[in-house]
Order: sequence, then C-alpha cells, then structure tokens
Amino acid sequence: MPVEYISLNNNNKIPNVGLGLWKLNPESNVDTIYNAIKIGYRVLDGAVDYGNTKELGIAVKKAIKDKLVTREELFIVSKLWNNHHAPKNVKPAIEKILKDLDLDYIDLIYIHFPLPFKAVDVNDKDHYPPGFFTPNQLQKGQENVIELENVPLHKTWESLEELYDPKNGIIRNLGLSNCQGVLIQDLLFGCKIKPQILQIEIHPYLPQWRLVEWCHLHDIAVTAYSSFGSQSFIELESAKAKSCVNLLEHQLIKEIASKYEGAGNSDVLLQWAVQRKICVIPKSNNVKRLETNFHFTNKFPNGLSKEDVDKIATLENGTRFNDPWDWNDMKFPTFI
Amino acid sequence: MPVEYISLNNNNKIPNVGLGLWKLNPESNVDTIYNAIKIGYRVLDGAVDYGNTKELGIAVKKAIKDKLVTREELFIVSKLWNNHHAPKNVKPAIEKILKDLDLDYIDLIYIHFPLPFKAVDVNDKDHYPPGFFTPNQLQKGQENVIELENVPLHKTWESLEELYDPKNGIIRNLGLSNCQGVLIQDLLFGCKIKPQILQIEIHPYLPQWRLVEWCHLHDIAVTAYSSFGSQSFIELESAKAKSCVNLLEHQLIKEIASKYEGAGNSDVLLQWAVQRKICVIPKSNNVKRLETNFHFTNKFPNGLSKEDVDKIATLENGTRFNDPWDWNDMKFPTFI
Repeated sequence: MPVEYISLNNNNKIPNVGLGLWKLNPESNVDTIYNAIKIGYRVLDGAVDYGNTKELGIAVKKAIKDKLVTREELFIVSKLWNNHHAPKNVKPAIEKILKDLDLDYIDLIYIHFPLPFKAVDVNDKDHYPPGFFTPNQLQKGQENVIELENVPLHKTWESLEELYDPKNGIIRNLGLSNCQGVLIQDLLFGCKIKPQILQIEIHPYLPQWRLVEWCHLHDIAVTAYSSFGSQSFIELESAKAKSCVNLLEHQLIKEIASKYEGAGNSDVLLQWAVQRKICVIPKSNNVKRLETNFHFTNKFPNGLSKEDVDKIATLENGTRFNDPWDWNDMKFPTFI
Repeated sequence: MPVEYISLNNNNKIPNVGLGLWKLNPESNVDTIYNAIKIGYRVLDGAVDYGNTKELGIAVKKAIKDKLVTREELFIVSKLWNNHHAPKNVKPAIEKILKDLDLDYIDLIYIHFPLPFKAVDVNDKDHYPPGFFTPNQLQKGQENVIELENVPLHKTWESLEELYDPKNGIIRNLGLSNCQGVLIQDLLFGCKIKPQILQIEIHPYLPQWRLVEWCHLHDIAVTAYSSFGSQSFIELESAKAKSCVNLLEHQLIKEIASKYEGAGNSDVLLQWAVQRKICVIPKSNNVKRLETNFHFTNKFPNGLSKEDVDKIATLENGTRFNDPWDWNDMKFPTFI
C-alpha cells in the first residue's frame, strides 16, 4: 500500500496510518519500531508516559543510519504529559523529549489530556517519566489521589505556540488529545495557532460522529486511538473492557470481514476509520501483525460498502474505555 | 410549602423553586410575575433574550410597593447574552440589565451560553434585546449565519468577576449556563471566583447524572431548565420535541403520579429534580398552574420512593431539546 497523506491546516501533511507506541513490549520495542519503519510506517506515535521515548530515538537513528528512511520522511509524535502544563515547565518538557529522542525537532506534540497535574521535574531521574502520582505521594504510599495544579488549557497552549513553526520550529505541528468539542472551540476563540490535529478514542462502540464532523468542518485532522476497542484495556485489567464483546472477535465484524478477500476484523476496523478521513495508529509487538495492519487497505480496493458501514453503525453504544471519570475514582468530567 | 434554600459556595443561598421567565406571554407577563411573587415564588429567572427584563422590573417594584415581599427576599436572575462576551461589553451589558430592571443590584448573572456572538450595542434601540443575528445580517435579510466573535470564556468570566461581590456587588452570585464539565473544570483551573451555580437542561430523558454529581462534588449548585422536557420546544415547532412522548403526558410518569395523592405528572417531574438537590424554575402563564407548580412538594411528604426514582431512570435516552448543534445548522459543538 502506498502511504496516504492527510493535509493539515498549516500545509504540512501526515500519513494516515502510523504505529502507536503505547504499551509496546519494553523488551523488544527498539526492534519493533525499527521493523515498523522497515515495513513502511512513517508516523511513530509516542508519549512521555509510554516510557519509551529513548527507545523510539534509538530505533529512528538506526533506521536512518541503515538508510531505510530519511528524517524528513518520518513523522515523529510525542505528547506533553499532565505534569508539565505550567508555562514555565512546557519548554523544559519539550526539550527533555527531544534530548531523549536525540533529535532536534519533533513533528507533532499533543497536549495529552486537558488535565494539569502537579509538576514533576524533568531532571528528577527517580520520577521521570512521570505517571499519575507525584513523588511526594509515591513516597508516602498515597497512590489514591491525583494532585492537580491550576493551569487552564489556554496557558499551556500559549507556551507550546512559542515553540511551534510549521517548517523550522522544534515543534512542527500542534495537537490536542482527549478534548471535547466545547473545550476545543473555546481554545479556538483565543489561540494564535489553531491545533492541526485531535487524537481521541474512536471505534464502532464510540464513533464520535459529531466531534469528528466538527473537527473536519474546522479543518482540524483527527487521529483515532483504540481502533480495536477494548483490546488495550483488557491488558490493563479493565472490568469495562472485559465485560464487552471484543471488536476483534465480534461476530458482526467477522461477517463483514468475510465479504472482503483476505480481510480480518482488524482490517475492517482500520478501514472503517480511514474511510472517514481519520488517521489510525494500531499497535502490535508482532512483526507479521505490524505488516498486516499496515496493508489493510489492500483488502478493500473499493472500500467498505455503504451497507457494511451502516451495519457497523449499529454497534454504537457509547462505551468509552479511556474515561478520566473512572481514573482512580477521581471523577474528572466525562467526555461523554 | 415553606421555601427551601440551597446553600451556595459563597455562603449566599437560593430558594430551590423559582419562576422561569422564558416565553412568558408578553401580554400578561407583568401580572404573571406579580402573581407568582404573591404565591410565594422568590427566584425570578430572566435573561436578556427573553425580552421581558423591563416587565420583570415593573412587577418586582409593584410587589415591593404592595408589601408582598422585600427586595432582600427576592432572588432576581438574568443572563449575559452571547453578544456581550467581549470584556469591554460586559459591564455596559450588566448596567443595561440593571437599568431595565430599575434595580441597583442583581442576585445572579449567568453566562447564557459559552458562545461569543458578534457584539450588539446595548444602546442600539432597534436591535436590543439582541437575538441570534446581528443588525447587519438582519438588514440584509441574511438570517442564516450566526456571526461569532473571538472571546474565550475565561475573558468574559474575568470581566464578570470584577462586578461581583457576594454581599455588596452589583452582581451577588455568578453562574454558567449550558456548559459541559470539561469547560467548567478548565475555567476552575484559572478563575478567581468559582461559579456558584450551573443552569442546564435536565429532565428524565436527559438526567445529566455525571455533570450534576461533578458540580455537587465541587460545591457548584445546579438549576434545571426544561424540567417538563419537550413542552417549551413544542411551542417552538421543534421537530425533535414533537417526535417524542411529552413527559407531561407520559404513561410511566402518570402511573407514578397516581401513587401520590393529588399529584400529576408535573409534580413528579419537579419532585424528581429537587430530590437530587437540583433547583427548578417551571414556567406557566396560568395562575392556577403557577400555584400547583409552587406547591408540588406537598404531594410527596416522604419524597418519591426509590422504586419510582429507579423507574424514572429507565426513561433516559439522551434527548437534548436545546442543542446548539442544531441551531440554524451551525453545528456548534454538542454538549453530549
């Protein structure tokens, strides 16, 4: 499959299929990323809290050294984690990401969540990359409260705007993740640089019809995470994920897949998204699976039929696997 | 029924039953408001775009003059309309409301919607009170586009904060209306004065469980509008409202009402809300109906039973009658 591109509102472009780095096996992640690049993946979707930024950098350098790809052909992504929302912490956080990657610019930085957590110093080796809890709480064994810091989204965004330039910045594109329409709209009323892209949970149980349509109307591209639904969350022992039918084994998706030569459930789920002009970032630790995921469009020379798309629409039930409302029972405002 | 109060986070308090002034019959609104005060209503929930601010002021003055009530006993509410979000327009807009009311302070100002429309001068007699369209568009007959102005919510809020003081300000309490959790949370990360109250659409079809719980967790009171569901929107010829069962005639609500002596559907719908610590603001042009609405709690000396509350919960279907997504097909981000 040739790489297809989505045009961004700053005239940059992003390939519509990439590799998600969340929960890549730490034992093999350098090889996995390297092999993905070999297969043809150009978007490498990382984040600070995935804990594999250095490994992403190592794999990228190796691939460039081995002439699999040039830096310019790659689209390297990371996300500003919740502990670095305060304006004074944004630049150090981005510089730390670049240092860990050993690169001089990054193609896309998302704000990971619209939730400012108490700061963790990027030089605090014992607590970087940070997670949900502050060093103070971890010391005390108080892993039950997430400490917040008062930073509204527009302040963090302003600090990122200062590091952005579509051609020469240390950040070439800016994005939001896990944001709802009303919050993005309010940011648009005040920002200088409009987000290029929004990354949110999207799968047939949670198709996000309106939010995707709204983004496209406003020339904001959309990337889906968790295209396979519950899969990633089953590994996290999520009761919600375990209690619903895994889309990778769903009978309706199987029936649809059987109509397209060589297609499986994963292919249908990815094709369903890209037909909606949504970018996808499936993850796998398995090289064969990486290859299958990368070539899914070959199985749908004419796309999914309208009939099949309509059938998939019947699966919508509002299930959101990554819902801050549930995080540690903190009841952060739902995105629903 | 004695008036019950809800405590606000600034130590002020608001009666939990009030009169909504939206779509009061212009022929009789002064009498209706006056009669409501006579019956015992203390909260008078107005807004600029309801077009009856002067009449509200007249009725209030008459009631005070006739010694039905004192100014201090009343809780007079208005809302900053969308055309006055720009910081320089906020104070003139509030002063205009006070001038129309002929009062020197107001008990509560809500931001009506988190949507900044192009400004309309409060002294432009031909176009005040403003609606959805700007004078320019009305002149050209272009009633198909809502013109926006770039003002993020926090800027409007800051301007309102300057007019606020819980005891002596020209505004005694501040509120948001038609806002979702993520947007309110983001405002909380940056504001000096936390909102005292949120007013949103709430009825059994749209119970807003999470948003209400979140507000209460953060000590923000909640007022429900459209407690009767589609009723107000049927009058507006809303197809959505016409296509669903009117809660005032719903068989399940009828069956529940029949268990409580003298209760009708409207009583059940109001009781259902106040049991959740939500304020209600039913509207009627009919004095007998005003009286019935005011005394609904008398029919439920022990409240609605858990069994009945659970039955009402089965009616939830996400129907939102006042959805900016639908406004003139502008597709403003949904609140869902």
